[in-house]
Amino acid sequence: MKAIANGIWRITIGEPETWNPTSIRKFPVKNEALEKLKKRKIKPEVMEQMQWETSIRGITITLPMEASEDIYGFGLQLKSMNHAGRKRIIKVNSDPPSDTGESHAPVPFYISTAGYGLFVDSFRYISFYMGTVAEKGSSKHMQQENIEHKEFSESALYALKRAKEKRKIIIEIPRVKGVDIYFFTGDIKEVVQRYNLFSGGGCLPPMWGLGMWYRTYGGSSQDTVLELARLFREEHMPMDVLGLEPGWHSHSYSCSYKWSYLFEKPQQMIQQLEQKGYKLNLWEHSYVYPTAPFYEQIMKYSGECEVWNGLVPDFATKEACSIFAQYHQKEFVKLGIKGFKLDECDNSDYNPSDWSFPDSTKFPSNMDGEQMHMAIGILYQNLLYRVFKNELVRTFSQVRSSGALAAPLPFVLYSDLYDHKQFIRGMVTSGFSGLLWAPEVRDCLNENDLLRRLQTIVFSEQALINSWRIPSPPWKQVDIEKNLAGEWMEEATYYTNACRKYFEIRMQLLPYLYSAFVEYYQNGTPPIRALVMDYSNDEQVRNIDDEYMFGKSLLVCPLTIEDKITRQIYLPEGVWYHFFTGEVIQGGKSITIKADYDQIPVYVRENTIIPIAKPVLYVSKDTVFEIKVKEFGTGETQFTLYEDDYETFSYEKGNMNEVILQRDARGNISYIRKGCQKERYKIQCSVKESSKRQEI
Amino acid sequence: MKAIANGIWRITIGEPETWNPTSIRKFPVKNEALEKLKKRKIKPEVMEQMQWETSIRGITITLPMEASEDIYGFGLQLKSMNHAGRKRIIKVNSDPPSDTGESHAPVPFYISTAGYGLFVDSFRYISFYMGTVAEKGSSKHMQQENIEHKEFSESALYALKRAKEKRKIIIEIPRVKGVDIYFFTGDIKEVVQRYNLFSGGGCLPPMWGLGMWYRTYGGSSQDTVLELARLFREEHMPMDVLGLEPGWHSHSYSCSYKWSYLFEKPQQMIQQLEQKGYKLNLWEHSYVYPTAPFYEQIMKYSGECEVWNGLVPDFATKEACSIFAQYHQKEFVKLGIKGFKLDECDNSDYNPSDWSFPDSTKFPSNMDGEQMHMAIGILYQNLLYRVFKNELVRTFSQVRSSGALAAPLPFVLYSDLYDHKQFIRGMVTSGFSGLLWAPEVRDCLNENDLLRRLQTIVFSEQALINSWRIPSPPWKQVDIEKNLAGEWMEEATYYTNACRKYFEIRMQLLPYLYSAFVEYYQNGTPPIRALVMDYSNDEQVRNIDDEYMFGKSLLVCPLTIEDKITRQIYLPEGVWYHFFTGEVIQGGKSITIKADYDQIPVYVRENTIIPIAKPVLYVSKDTVFEIKVKEFGTGETQFTLYEDDYETFSYEKGNMNEVILQRDARGNISYIRKGCQKERYKIQCSVKESSKRQEI
Repeated sequence: MKAIANGIWRITIGEPETWNPTSIRKFPVKNEALEKLKKRKIKPEVMEQMQWETSIRGITITLPMEASEDIYGFGLQLKSMNHAGRKRIIKVNSDPPSDTGESHAPVPFYISTAGYGLFVDSFRYISFYMGTVAEKGSSKHMQQENIEHKEFSESALYALKRAKEKRKIIIEIPRVKGVDIYFFTGDIKEVVQRYNLFSGGGCLPPMWGLGMWYRTYGGSSQDTVLELARLFREEHMPMDVLGLEPGWHSHSYSCSYKWSYLFEKPQQMIQQLEQKGYKLNLWEHSYVYPTAPFYEQIMKYSGECEVWNGLVPDFATKEACSIFAQYHQKEFVKLGIKGFKLDECDNSDYNPSDWSFPDSTKFPSNMDGEQMHMAIGILYQNLLYRVFKNELVRTFSQVRSSGALAAPLPFVLYSDLYDHKQFIRGMVTSGFSGLLWAPEVRDCLNENDLLRRLQTIVFSEQALINSWRIPSPPWKQVDIEKNLAGEWMEEATYYTNACRKYFEIRMQLLPYLYSAFVEYYQNGTPPIRALVMDYSNDEQVRNIDDEYMFGKSLLVCPLTIEDKITRQIYLPEGVWYHFFTGEVIQGGKSITIKADYDQIPVYVRENTIIPIAKPVLYVSKDTVFEIKVKEFGTGETQFTLYEDDYETFSYEKGNMNEVILQRDARGNISYIRKGCQKERYKIQCSVKESSKRQEI
Repeated sequence: MKAIANGIWRITIGEPETWNPTSIRKFPVKNEALEKLKKRKIKPEVMEQMQWETSIRGITITLPMEASEDIYGFGLQLKSMNHAGRKRIIKVNSDPPSDTGESHAPVPFYISTAGYGLFVDSFRYISFYMGTVAEKGSSKHMQQENIEHKEFSESALYALKRAKEKRKIIIEIPRVKGVDIYFFTGDIKEVVQRYNLFSGGGCLPPMWGLGMWYRTYGGSSQDTVLELARLFREEHMPMDVLGLEPGWHSHSYSCSYKWSYLFEKPQQMIQQLEQKGYKLNLWEHSYVYPTAPFYEQIMKYSGECEVWNGLVPDFATKEACSIFAQYHQKEFVKLGIKGFKLDECDNSDYNPSDWSFPDSTKFPSNMDGEQMHMAIGILYQNLLYRVFKNELVRTFSQVRSSGALAAPLPFVLYSDLYDHKQFIRGMVTSGFSGLLWAPEVRDCLNENDLLRRLQTIVFSEQALINSWRIPSPPWKQVDIEKNLAGEWMEEATYYTNACRKYFEIRMQLLPYLYSAFVEYYQNGTPPIRALVMDYSNDEQVRNIDDEYMFGKSLLVCPLTIEDKITRQIYLPEGVWYHFFTGEVIQGGKSITIKADYDQIPVYVRENTIIPIAKPVLYVSKDTVFEIKVKEFGTGETQFTLYEDDYETFSYEKGNMNEVILQRDARGNISYIRKGCQKERYKIQCSVKESSKRQEI
């Protein structure tokens, strides 16, 4: 048993495996930041009660669990948030049809309301039984009898089965002879911060990464991409990032990593897009088709099986990383590509064809297929992060699989699963385990569905519209067949305007959101948080997975098309303000609210000031944001903005200003600028008092 | 490598575990019957090419697979029949939402069109990768390029991914240090027969078990059950078996194994039902509630965890078996109970609550939870079979989980999953691995759905209507809410008559079906078979999973409500006759046929005679069937009927007559009776020639 840092302990059982999340980590523990958190010198009680056993099954760990205890975490979880009473299978699967715990990014880390978090440092498919069973004989005293016919309805039968007595947590780590277990102490938010700082702190995306994203039609050519880029600017649609889908490759499944004949002069295209302020992102996956220039070279450092005729590089070897990285650096990043989207690097038991490699596959690094499935997303992110870092370029990229200790990696998860309610839950749950999630707009049922989904992405970590199936933007035509036929909706102008309105809201919030990411980087507080993180003493919020905190002070309650124009919301104790209308609402209760299809209910904590930027069409290295301060309630409060170059790693050396907006007790607003970096915010205060600059 | 029997070989790798399907088997290999099959002295080629390896993962086996090879088996499979190109996870799960290989009764046994079958003798969760991958570098020669925009539609993308090159079969058996692998040689049907005879031969149900089954409303009382029994007889609805659902217990989940207050005089009820010709079947599950009389006694022989407040008896111990068996024998079987229905003895990862015990659970026998999940269905069947055998009573029972080597056990699988097309596929697939399956009629969308489902059960191994949710029979009211409210349909009389017609068809086919089961018992040929078993040389039938052979000569093509009144069928080469109309159809092609809601298309092989009984309302120990011979085509042919007491084990000592119906070249029909048992068939021949009796 070893104290690792403030509030973090480790128990080593037996001899841990060579490969595990901590052995491939590239970011050091942020000890200094951990020291700034509340001092926690006493180990969590549950740690003393942990029992374990080694057998041919691997290692089985048992911990006590109270009936009232609630459980969060386990990475990206689309089907549920509170895992008390459930079995969780921590196994990468791209399309779990049920609530099993599997996902694109399952993480063997949970947080209990009993005041602790637990992380199993392993790439094995771990089963967590979170209070599903009790000790034999626990129910000996029970003498109930069936008394009602109505017990024999289907729903009643299943309701009967829920355990109410003291339960056990059982963790089964298969195959291993040893493993490290980490304990984190504190309330929910504190445990999450500790886990993120242990991971190396949150990532800080470039400012443009927080702008609007658009992935173009899979059948695009160089000309159609440029035409689309022109159209966005002509119609004043804010747009920072364009993404190319599989069609840009000369072979996509598996990948050639070479431009298709549809893109004759890619370098020219990249430059033309750059001139218009666009950053280009390229779809790929990591399986290497025979026509890839580095096919022969990487073969030796690949797994023993092919997937879709392609090699599976072993990114746990330096050689495979170096071959892949060098090619990407030279052919793409040096040409101005700003990010990638790694697709289908996960696995699927539920799409039962030749999707991926077997769990038993051998890799040159001695990882097996199981470990590689759990590690590949992180290995790829580490590798790509390094490519960009070498070029001193901050990326903000996409990846379809991730895992443990991912917080410092500037990659956002996404999915093909499309369900809007699940996408909202994905944002809420991923924040427990150092993950970011994009609730992409893709297929929309109709125009109202488009608006509802857009509202959600505007209040997400990555505001992405993915039009891989349609040549024209969805605000021109939501119907896929008609869109493919080139037919625009009669109301295209109306929906273009309605969408632009939301894009501009996003651009207004860029500085606010950037501050949230700086907090994530500095102290591990996720930009998007379940209410239970900020209000852990409020029993009412323990199962709320369709509302969330966005940055420091906004509480977002998105609606989906199923909700039509009303939904129930819960606001914690205190006074809340409607972000758009200013309407005052007393919290501590559930209420039903109305929101027309062009409205999203967003609430502001009492006594808050929020910086609002004048929307720009895109972020460039010279962008200076004109900031107004939006006030809610009265009384002393402050908000810190951060200024740096927004796109290099200079901030890591402290090259970042703090701009502290303040409202005093009399309602006067002023600001102080600490630091000597170039000014990126032009702040209009509501009071005359001039701003002060403070050098540090 | 060891020759086990004619056409069966074993390879032992390392040291196999203590617990596996062959170590709990209660039926000896039927060597004599195996000797009667085609002599096979040459080992399958693939056996020589098998490679294996032991690691911390367990044992991984690799075999070659041709691109054209097709794969069947793996036990009950509701989602697909041909497993070529798929990963199969052999793990008990009650409600797999996707085509993973999991089911109520997965079996680690497959049959390849390459002329062999392979059985892994293990209770571990085995993964079979049936040609999902190729060796690294196999595709080196490929130089394709994306050339069409239309490749980027979703369906095209997935179609692109199917491997076409030479593949590998990879079998991963986790955790073990040793295992026995069995090879069976021959064409598909022969391999299935060998597997079934290796298992101990097929079961022979009592004749009444092949009659009509009805499970009553879960909220039934003694009086309502008796009233229903009266109604069936009054309305001349053939009915042999009544089943009681959870409500008969004083506590059901987990079980008290005691009558509820709703059944005041169960012994009297059983007798009254017996007098009317009914056999009674009791729902239960095997988890023991504290009020069960043997709770204290069985605690010591139970697993370390509770499920739903109940103990999980370890039926791999003699003690738990003996406690459970003695109670059942004394309290139920001696009183006249003729069978049980073991519910929810499977497991579920997809219903993520406290459904069952963890895989790591320890049992007194030293089985772990994983092994117990795979074994519990078979252990229970062995135990119950013994209880009935001790009383010299043949049972035909139900169970929701089964596994390897189950052929001799007179238990039928069922499910809560309700999908009619899947239920048909279940019949077809279960026949590959020694399992029986009941495509129960439960919830029906409407009256036509009721008819379609009824038509299927009439041509199944167990003709079961499960009305656990409705007090009145579905032919009185299909709507559940209205049925609960006691409201009958206006057309109740019409549907009562329509259903009776089908029940009578079932009763007409009882002797025919009984012969099919005797064949199952004697030579391992399943009563229901995929077309690929009988027509393995016809490439057209390799993926047909919605038609099947029923007994020796009938080919059944059920329709579902989705089909409305037409469907495509395929009939193999040769002349076929419509069973009901006599219409002649030339086979060897697909045709679209029409079948009104009150019709089911059933075809008869050319040159066939089929015994048709005058329908009885139920089978008693004195029943004598009046048989007419239905003729199809002309020419010499024969059909063998079997006579015994229909309900004891006397047949095992050879106390069974063969009654051989014959049609000679001139079209004259006669029969020969071999054996000296009591005559159960009164046969009306179409020719004058008197019958001969031949003593043996």
